[in-house]
Amino acid sequence: MLHAVVMAGGSGTRFWPKSRRHSPKQLLRLFGDATMLQQTVARIAPLVPPERTLIITGADQAEAVREQLPDLPRENVVAEPCPRDTAPCVGLAAQIVARRDPDGTMIVMPADHVIQPAETFRATVRAALAEIDADPTTFITFGVKPTHPETGYGYIERGEALPPREGIALHRVAQFREKPDRATAEQFVASGRFAWNAGIFLWRARAILDALQTHRPKLAAALDRIAQTFGTPAEAETLAREFPAMEKVPIDKAVMEKAPNVRVLEVVYNWSDVGDWRALAPLLPHDDQGNAVQGKTVTTDTRNSVVISDDGGLIACLGVEDLVIVQSGGATLVARKDQMDKLKSLVEKLDSEYL
Amino acid sequence: MLHAVVMAGGSGTRFWPKSRRHSPKQLLRLFGDATMLQQTVARIAPLVPPERTLIITGADQAEAVREQLPDLPRENVVAEPCPRDTAPCVGLAAQIVARRDPDGTMIVMPADHVIQPAETFRATVRAALAEIDADPTTFITFGVKPTHPETGYGYIERGEALPPREGIALHRVAQFREKPDRATAEQFVASGRFAWNAGIFLWRARAILDALQTHRPKLAAALDRIAQTFGTPAEAETLAREFPAMEKVPIDKAVMEKAPNVRVLEVVYNWSDVGDWRALAPLLPHDDQGNAVQGKTVTTDTRNSVVISDDGGLIACLGVEDLVIVQSGGATLVARKDQMDKLKSLVEKLDSEYL
Repeated sequence: MLHAVVMAGGSGTRFWPKSRRHSPKQLLRLFGDATMLQQTVARIAPLVPPERTLIITGADQAEAVREQLPDLPRENVVAEPCPRDTAPCVGLAAQIVARRDPDGTMIVMPADHVIQPAETFRATVRAALAEIDADPTTFITFGVKPTHPETGYGYIERGEALPPREGIALHRVAQFREKPDRATAEQFVASGRFAWNAGIFLWRARAILDALQTHRPKLAAALDRIAQTFGTPAEAETLAREFPAMEKVPIDKAVMEKAPNVRVLEVVYNWSDVGDWRALAPLLPHDDQGNAVQGKTVTTDTRNSVVISDDGGLIACLGVEDLVIVQSGGATLVARKDQMDKLKSLVEKLDSEYL
Repeated sequence: MLHAVVMAGGSGTRFWPKSRRHSPKQLLRLFGDATMLQQTVARIAPLVPPERTLIITGADQAEAVREQLPDLPRENVVAEPCPRDTAPCVGLAAQIVARRDPDGTMIVMPADHVIQPAETFRATVRAALAEIDADPTTFITFGVKPTHPETGYGYIERGEALPPREGIALHRVAQFREKPDRATAEQFVASGRFAWNAGIFLWRARAILDALQTHRPKLAAALDRIAQTFGTPAEAETLAREFPAMEKVPIDKAVMEKAPNVRVLEVVYNWSDVGDWRALAPLLPHDDQGNAVQGKTVTTDTRNSVVISDDGGLIACLGVEDLVIVQSGGATLVARKDQMDKLKSLVEKLDSEYL
């Protein structure tokens, strides 16, 4: 059976002032009526019921996650004692899935990406399931066709072509490449052989645990010690002791780069990791001057801007362009779009009440 | 004796979102600890006690004026039933002064200009008083040396030079010129013969009433009918009936352009009518990046901007320049400095709750 594992541990400042320490991006209602996390769960829900949906999140976000997903069993929201990157997170989830369902398959998904249309996404998941059913030892990654030489993403080089699954192209993986420099990214895109690593994986829980045992035995041993206490009074204490001591490493590096039987599916849905306010613009309603707007706004002679009022106040713009203006939680950001990369350095200047 | 008449009837949108229908510019604390009105009264106070200080304002602002000036007798705050420009306003004030003090002199001042230093201003007032004492039939205007070819002000051309009064240059007036076009303004400034009309006048109350009788007999007759009811039960009703029917005309046009005995004093204090947010910048504290700031603000890579937080919220600016950002009364303005002239057209789009 398919289990969903949603990685919802991110913090981050790129959506300040809306994102704060206790309300990171995935818990925000950035567009539409649902939060990014709720949209992620809803997207897979036709294939995975709530009792097989796990959310791995931070201890300080677990309650907020449970409030946002009231249909999930309480124990399906798992709090990491501290962030240790994706390999310990995925390994912990795989132990939970394997204990509940020894032959279970799991799809691992970030909680804060935009994927549209959902039906095309689910068709891709069904294709991956068919591949896993044919060979339960394989690991499937979802690769996004790159539209520009982005240096912020990991890349996957396609190797030998395999027969398509349900009409979706499938390849062996030649190599994983972490965030490249600009020139390398340009070569990757020009070659036509690379896909963006979209952070979605599909595999048997038992297969990924076996691979961790092979490639990261210490990490696997720690996971085993945690799993042995599942359902016992020692569970919480063991997790709190073992988890922070694990190696901080992404699952890509721990397993995917080394495993021989990795496949990449070429996805055809629209994908965005919505990295900052600029990336959100296409998802918002636009005013008659072409600005992305949300909440109470009035614009005069204003172009190519994002204007969001989240506190109920009015934002009035006059004669400005290429700005991001966001009011939320008693703070207002006014930033040039092309300077958004420096938002982190601005947020570092702020008093803790605004973090 | 000298009486002060402060014209505090302005409304206006140029300081939106801080200025609103019921809190126009003169009632605002734009800089420092006092409102523009309070600063105006404090400036003349060493020469004029509260009982000889009159404020002429709008009916909907009278209570706010009384709250801001608790030392003034209640009856010294006079509410115009409706705005009729400065001639009816000045005429009404002159009637009140003349009734209390038949030989009284009055200085007429706008409530919303910045004048610094106050001592230099008072020295100029003393010079004007000396001139009036020498010839009680003269009308004195205060002329400001122009610094640029401003098209938004009236100009006064100096005529024959008269002996300076207390070290301050004094001339007959050759002509008053209303707001000129740009080319004309440039000629005025280049000629060295013109001063800006700063809207401050000094004269005997009786003299201005006589001049109104000569040049605007209908207006003078209406003022007489109002004055005849001063202190009677019919006063309020008569004012409410007569005032709105008066000619709407500035005192410059009604009297000053026609009277033969007008003098212009060349003032040496710093003067600004603080026309909009841009003009306020020099009066505000500046951050280490040279931005004019007030309230909770944080700036990164931000230049030549005005950033004012008036509601207690934080305004954070990143990579912007030449902006005016003002948050007040639940509304936030983000405007390019060089587009501020269009603020009125923006405000016209707003719901009444923001007016």
